[in-house]
Amino acid sequence: MTDRITLAHGAGGALTRKLMRQVFLRHLHNPELSALGDSAPLNITSDRIAFTTDNFVVDPIFFPGGDLGKLAVCGTVNDLAVSGAEPKYISAGLIIEEGYPLDDLDKLVISMANASFESGVKVVCADVKVVERGKADGVFINTSGLGVDTEKISCEPVNPGDIVIISGTVGDHEIAVISARIDFHIKTSIVSDCAPLTPLIRTLLDQVQGIKMMRDPTQGGIATLLCKWVESSSYGVEIREKDIPIAPNIRSICQILGLDPLYLANQGKAALICRPSDAQRVIDIMHKNPLSRDAAIIGEVWDDFPGKVILQTETEGKKILEMRAGEGSYRVC
Amino acid sequence: MTDRITLAHGAGGALTRKLMRQVFLRHLHNPELSALGDSAPLNITSDRIAFTTDNFVVDPIFFPGGDLGKLAVCGTVNDLAVSGAEPKYISAGLIIEEGYPLDDLDKLVISMANASFESGVKVVCADVKVVERGKADGVFINTSGLGVDTEKISCEPVNPGDIVIISGTVGDHEIAVISARIDFHIKTSIVSDCAPLTPLIRTLLDQVQGIKMMRDPTQGGIATLLCKWVESSSYGVEIREKDIPIAPNIRSICQILGLDPLYLANQGKAALICRPSDAQRVIDIMHKNPLSRDAAIIGEVWDDFPGKVILQTETEGKKILEMRAGEGSYRVC
Repeated sequence: MTDRITLAHGAGGALTRKLMRQVFLRHLHNPELSALGDSAPLNITSDRIAFTTDNFVVDPIFFPGGDLGKLAVCGTVNDLAVSGAEPKYISAGLIIEEGYPLDDLDKLVISMANASFESGVKVVCADVKVVERGKADGVFINTSGLGVDTEKISCEPVNPGDIVIISGTVGDHEIAVISARIDFHIKTSIVSDCAPLTPLIRTLLDQVQGIKMMRDPTQGGIATLLCKWVESSSYGVEIREKDIPIAPNIRSICQILGLDPLYLANQGKAALICRPSDAQRVIDIMHKNPLSRDAAIIGEVWDDFPGKVILQTETEGKKILEMRAGEGSYRVC
Repeated sequence: MTDRITLAHGAGGALTRKLMRQVFLRHLHNPELSALGDSAPLNITSDRIAFTTDNFVVDPIFFPGGDLGKLAVCGTVNDLAVSGAEPKYISAGLIIEEGYPLDDLDKLVISMANASFESGVKVVCADVKVVERGKADGVFINTSGLGVDTEKISCEPVNPGDIVIISGTVGDHEIAVISARIDFHIKTSIVSDCAPLTPLIRTLLDQVQGIKMMRDPTQGGIATLLCKWVESSSYGVEIREKDIPIAPNIRSICQILGLDPLYLANQGKAALICRPSDAQRVIDIMHKNPLSRDAAIIGEVWDDFPGKVILQTETEGKKILEMRAGEGSYRVC
């Protein structure tokens, strides 16, 4: 095997098989993982399946607190977990640029293996395609995921008075990626929050019955997520700026760069709406888990401004948070 | 919406939602198709699931007989079908280069919708990421697929005397793509064989009990597929050059370009090994379907050369077909 990816590695012949064996099957070995291009036979003893897909094109591929491989597993696992499904199996589809170092590919697949292990999922099918130099940007990864619906997200409607909770500080992932991409000429200790939420969410759903909505505020951040939740609804949400956990170094960099942390991507956070009577229980459970030690109640559901997200600021009174078109930083996940 | 894809279309904000609604939800509408980034709840009443993933990076994106969208659906559907699974659901993960024409994206998603309809599958989850100009090559698509195992592929071991069948002419897809990529200065009427195999394979598996192996000979062609089948086996395969269906225009272009059609990718063909007593029945069923009207018995399983694929040529006697490293044409699927 050469030390860099060649076009032939993606051509489906002997070199592709060698790559699959020496990198993918070696690090991701499990009984279901089939050879390249074949379908994996799975045994799922539930008729309620959750299925999701996500592309990961983060730039740079390695960033403080994670890399594309870890991100690709956590992102899809978290999508399943927050929807109330127990993540079980994921696929890995890689598009690699000719010339990419094999050592770096190896690191990415090891990261995928580690994140899969931590998340309790297996990577059961994989595909690699190689494109010519200048036709991709290193590596892009698609992961699709299968989970079994736990049916533990409450079917109760969201009501005024329900509580909005975030599992920790916001903005860390996007600022970590931006910091790795551009040279600030300042030393920062910022790391991405990229992590699998499976254990935290399993505990929450096992112990709290009244969680009505739950998602991971990735691209677009907590503000965009809340806008999606209230869109076309008979209720709105009011959140308090002072209660939203933001790490001091994230706040500083956001001020320097003119970014609003409420619109920045997170990769290891859950946001949820629950019954008021369950809120303290949610917070107590979250505070016991290191991933969510900064969890906080950040607001409530109201019917005063249906369809709107209101931010109670510390200095400017109330303002409406809108879903933004999509300006800002790109390729953060 | 602008007439070209912008980075903001992939940023997870309002423009992403607009794109999802105006292109994806519009063409691919079905009850399970969830909003961008969410997981789709599915009802699968079997505990034997088949799961597969594939990236599609074909260049050019539009080629005679198909396009990237059709290919992405057929490729994954066919992977499931030939494994003996009834394809049910697929995901669509698109990576799009900034500046890609929205009209072309629309055409690709319409192709995906048409191919899904013909294949009997639903696209139930989708994700779009956009990368900067020069960081991708138009559009790449990942599809992952879920099917229900029909358990109709025979568990009988492959035995000497078993028959090797191909469902039609070989090489059409790869030559169609190469023809579209390079200018031959000659007019050709070659079209890709890209098509969903679901109906053909459903009929075959319903009516024939003795199909022991079945795959679609995509990248690397029928030669590579047979090499994979016999690798580490106690049997080998002998095929006869004169019996392998090759369209005259494909044969001519292969001669001009010095390509071996046995190593060229197909996208609408199945190859299988069955009991001798079932071979004529397989051929009869195939000949009734326009997709496989050129189906032919091309060889037999032997124990003379275990692990080897022998080609009985028309002029040079017998020769061994080896799995090639991966040289040849790239980005054909």
